[in-house]
Amino acid sequence: MKLASLKSGRDGKLVVVSRDLTRAVSAQHIAPTLQAALDEWADCETALLDLFNKLQAGPVSGEFPFDSEAAAAPLPRCYHWADGSAYVTHVELVRKARGAELPDSFWTDPLIYMGASDAFIGANDDVLAESEDWGIDFEAEVVVFTDDVPAGIKAEQARNHIKLIGLVNDVSLRNLIPAELGKQFGFYQSKPQTSFTPVAVTPDELGDAWDGAKVHLPLIATLNETKIGSPNAGVDMTFDFGQLIQHAAKSRALMAGTVIGSGTVANQGSPDGSCCLAEVRCLETIAQGKPSTPFMSFGDRIVIEMLDSDGLSIFGRIDQRIVQYHPPT
Amino acid sequence: MKLASLKSGRDGKLVVVSRDLTRAVSAQHIAPTLQAALDEWADCETALLDLFNKLQAGPVSGEFPFDSEAAAAPLPRCYHWADGSAYVTHVELVRKARGAELPDSFWTDPLIYMGASDAFIGANDDVLAESEDWGIDFEAEVVVFTDDVPAGIKAEQARNHIKLIGLVNDVSLRNLIPAELGKQFGFYQSKPQTSFTPVAVTPDELGDAWDGAKVHLPLIATLNETKIGSPNAGVDMTFDFGQLIQHAAKSRALMAGTVIGSGTVANQGSPDGSCCLAEVRCLETIAQGKPSTPFMSFGDRIVIEMLDSDGLSIFGRIDQRIVQYHPPT
Repeated sequence: MKLASLKSGRDGKLVVVSRDLTRAVSAQHIAPTLQAALDEWADCETALLDLFNKLQAGPVSGEFPFDSEAAAAPLPRCYHWADGSAYVTHVELVRKARGAELPDSFWTDPLIYMGASDAFIGANDDVLAESEDWGIDFEAEVVVFTDDVPAGIKAEQARNHIKLIGLVNDVSLRNLIPAELGKQFGFYQSKPQTSFTPVAVTPDELGDAWDGAKVHLPLIATLNETKIGSPNAGVDMTFDFGQLIQHAAKSRALMAGTVIGSGTVANQGSPDGSCCLAEVRCLETIAQGKPSTPFMSFGDRIVIEMLDSDGLSIFGRIDQRIVQYHPPT
Repeated sequence: MKLASLKSGRDGKLVVVSRDLTRAVSAQHIAPTLQAALDEWADCETALLDLFNKLQAGPVSGEFPFDSEAAAAPLPRCYHWADGSAYVTHVELVRKARGAELPDSFWTDPLIYMGASDAFIGANDDVLAESEDWGIDFEAEVVVFTDDVPAGIKAEQARNHIKLIGLVNDVSLRNLIPAELGKQFGFYQSKPQTSFTPVAVTPDELGDAWDGAKVHLPLIATLNETKIGSPNAGVDMTFDFGQLIQHAAKSRALMAGTVIGSGTVANQGSPDGSCCLAEVRCLETIAQGKPSTPFMSFGDRIVIEMLDSDGLSIFGRIDQRIVQYHPPT
């Protein structure tokens, strides 16, 4: 089934969305918000699925056209947002471009950072930044939403806690990153609000493209009508979502509604392009000694989408513009 | 006024607590949870204050004895938990103990990490850890709770967004930290669940001890009946809470219910002891070449408290034990 949160207050209103993303119906009688549904997933799942099946079967009372502009992020705010860097080939490339070695441990010990989760933005919301000098970049990623995960869980069991899947644009301010990572405390100012696809879907919606821990489909990133890349998210994912959850839950339980990200999707050698501009620039640096592609400018439009084998959009598309923000004086 | 959340479901039930921490009354008719109150603080503050004033004035209908055992963290889960390291003298000491220089920038550019905020624990809840080998330590800190903070705010204006103050035990797994910081992505496994005092208080409850951005009182940490330290939280706080909020909000707004921590309270030269065992061990290392104080063991009891000038507890006390946790097999 497919779920979305219509913009309303801080947490949105839960709706069920048809598989073709054209129709929706309120699910608030089952759970007022997606967070509430995930908090009581075992109690809500069947009723939500029943509603989805009715919507698929034909017209239902109260249905309305689904408009991605009206959708907030599936969880407009959440309690735990952990973003991995699971495509180690990407990390290796970034390091190579600056002449640094990749520690061997990076192939066996996942990189994960904690992200700010108090204000995710919708698929068509503007990405706000104060300055282009910050080096505004997109990062196209796959994310999963979990229910409650016990501490110390192993990867195989962790897979059972993946309830929903979506895509994000994990916007990065590249020129703020080196100083932050140099302090070793992780990203902070360099990671503004993260954008989500209009819908999140249960794993069964992916059919054979979901193997229980990875999505085996291209993730398409398009900047100003030019395709930047469409690497396959199931290829070169060094740590699958089960392994990422195991890592995140080593010393503490994860609560319902935790969102775990894959990190920028990337394939070895980037044969199908890249899911962020930083990777494009690294490839240019390695080939030509310096990057020629700039980071994003105000007014730029970034589109992120994943299509099923019939060419239909699975999650809806992130389609947003970069807009300047003026801080209070 | 003083507020607490009684244990109930995932978000607790909001109560107002008397200044002496002995009596409480439900505030759920004003806001069901503290998060709901912070979401609509401008609308809730006066009604909550009225209720507090009535409780202070004498018996009110429905009041009951306040029991810190029944209290969850004031926010049992929140959407943004940003912990600073504002006592740079502490960071300098830790570095000195391992023979490393402190970069000059650490005196002007705050260190902040993003913490997991999906499951804060109550003042009397057990601290769970799988292994003593992880190097279990306490960290006594001051925290503030904000309402909505616009992106790009400056420190002076940021002070106005501090709505509540509390204390935390930001438990750290010291032996997991070096590898995590080495990866530059910040703390993750090394920071399990954070514990909070039973109540959070409005700044006016601190009287002259609150200067608008710092708390000028000793923070007392006691391990197994032995005082480890009582450094003054208003001394040597290199970055005050206004500055920490400015830093956290540089590139994005902070949403209501954001919790900002001071980092381990520490005074130059540690004349009144320390607020974590890591600092004790650093002092031993500098003086004797190696640490002699061990980290915490299962069964250890840690108490964290702050007293007003009359010797009365302001926030109630964190008083908890370290307990072994067995992961699922």
